[in-house]
Amino acid sequence: MGDETGRLRAVRRRPTELSGSATRDVARLADDARALVAEAGLALADLEAVGVSLPGPLDPAGDRVLDPPNLPGWHDVPVRALLADALDGLPVHLENDANAAALAEWRFGAGRGLRSLVYLTMSTGVGGGIIEEGRLVRGRTWSAGEIGHSVLEWEGEPCFCGLRGCVEAYIGGRAWARRLARVAPAESRVVALAGEAAKASPVHVVQAAREGDAFALSEIGRFNRYLAQTIVTLAFTLDPDAVILGTIVAAAGETLVLEPVRRLVRARTWPRIAEGLQIRAATLGEEQPCYAGLCVGLAGLAAPGA
Amino acid sequence: MGDETGRLRAVRRRPTELSGSATRDVARLADDARALVAEAGLALADLEAVGVSLPGPLDPAGDRVLDPPNLPGWHDVPVRALLADALDGLPVHLENDANAAALAEWRFGAGRGLRSLVYLTMSTGVGGGIIEEGRLVRGRTWSAGEIGHSVLEWEGEPCFCGLRGCVEAYIGGRAWARRLARVAPAESRVVALAGEAAKASPVHVVQAAREGDAFALSEIGRFNRYLAQTIVTLAFTLDPDAVILGTIVAAAGETLVLEPVRRLVRARTWPRIAEGLQIRAATLGEEQPCYAGLCVGLAGLAAPGA
Repeated sequence: MGDETGRLRAVRRRPTELSGSATRDVARLADDARALVAEAGLALADLEAVGVSLPGPLDPAGDRVLDPPNLPGWHDVPVRALLADALDGLPVHLENDANAAALAEWRFGAGRGLRSLVYLTMSTGVGGGIIEEGRLVRGRTWSAGEIGHSVLEWEGEPCFCGLRGCVEAYIGGRAWARRLARVAPAESRVVALAGEAAKASPVHVVQAAREGDAFALSEIGRFNRYLAQTIVTLAFTLDPDAVILGTIVAAAGETLVLEPVRRLVRARTWPRIAEGLQIRAATLGEEQPCYAGLCVGLAGLAAPGA
Repeated sequence: MGDETGRLRAVRRRPTELSGSATRDVARLADDARALVAEAGLALADLEAVGVSLPGPLDPAGDRVLDPPNLPGWHDVPVRALLADALDGLPVHLENDANAAALAEWRFGAGRGLRSLVYLTMSTGVGGGIIEEGRLVRGRTWSAGEIGHSVLEWEGEPCFCGLRGCVEAYIGGRAWARRLARVAPAESRVVALAGEAAKASPVHVVQAAREGDAFALSEIGRFNRYLAQTIVTLAFTLDPDAVILGTIVAAAGETLVLEPVRRLVRARTWPRIAEGLQIRAATLGEEQPCYAGLCVGLAGLAAPGA
């Protein structure tokens, strides 16, 4: 809970703990909201709106959550109406998590003050959100920004989404871990840190690369090349002020990832476009989800028809 | 010259005929405009604005044309001020030709009535323009929509722009002709129609493919696959209502290109996004440049600060 200055008044975190019934899950969310408001010494009537950042896809009206792969048991759930009913009719606004994170980084994080940016989540998957002239680009089916499924290689690696050659199949954390299980040499520092190749993840690669492990460094090089390809295409398509990169990149930092990626992008983009393009790590860290919900509410207030 | 209903009141066409002096070239454009107005029985004072569609790049304020590869002798030319001076101070609006064509197809052509679209020129080069919620996406350096230089293959074909693996290096007409000179078999119908391989162009490929020539059909298949890859990435990035395709695709038509490309895109995009995505040929044909200038003027009137 917070306000338009970015002050978080009260925060509550808990594991998702799905109950098997979406209606019960949403009712529990409403209970959380009521508890949060009470904790801050306020009443529901003191709130202007409720913003919810949750896994997509949403329906094109932004009323319902369709079939999120990450919320088993949820099928076409009218979250907006359910929450509004449970919260005394407060206006409720929904946004998918990658769009909400883009709003949060734009309003309170690494993209503050910019007119346009592309945010890439860079976690187990690669979600994305696009801000253009200060507004989210949502697309016809609320799927704009699904940059993780842009095509890097037409005859490429299979992706967990069922397609192949997707960005996510190369630089998504889950795909990377699958690859590590297959290719990490037993004697590499990556495997030593992970215990076994089957448990290796990007965290171990970053750590091993910092220690100078040759395999880890070559893996980082591969990651950087595919990330750069993704950014070059975004730069020519949208020419944004900035590309903001989430979890894995924020953890890997400047030397291993951001500096090499900036060099690759500059080498593969026209100078006019590349020169002022900012490529940065997200800065909100663990508080990003709190800001994400807040920003969805604020954006809903600013565009009440949406 | 025309109005907001799309009625063209008078049209004048001539070859560009650069004089070597950009100032003289612009003065001649102003003379054309005066002649056009007189032809329609009007005076300059009857016009509300002048719209100019011309090769980019433009400066970020939209006042000047920088260094267009296709206008030798033009370097940082203040076209807006020069034309306004020569035309009694009428408001002048500039737009690069691909963006202007996107506006034209959106307002009066294949994209009429849609909220968002991506237009690809598909001529000697591959330019592009993006309409989102009824407005052009211009980007930080007025370079948004340069989709022809998105990366299809990181270690790919050299592009005339100096980079490699660009969309344009695979499906641009000039790059395709360069490839045909190298790979067209002497006995193919393509070479028979062109006279010699060095003169073969996409026009000959389309004609030969219609006649069933095996080499031409395989070339069309290659073109379709790269075009589909480009569209899949656009679909996941922007989720637009439509992708509108210009010259080469409009000439090749439904059976050879549009239907196979729609099938490929459907096979490589999530059903939710692919189902309603319209993939169409541009419809304004030879009149597109007239509508392009008109639409630049109309867009300028609608957003007077721009």
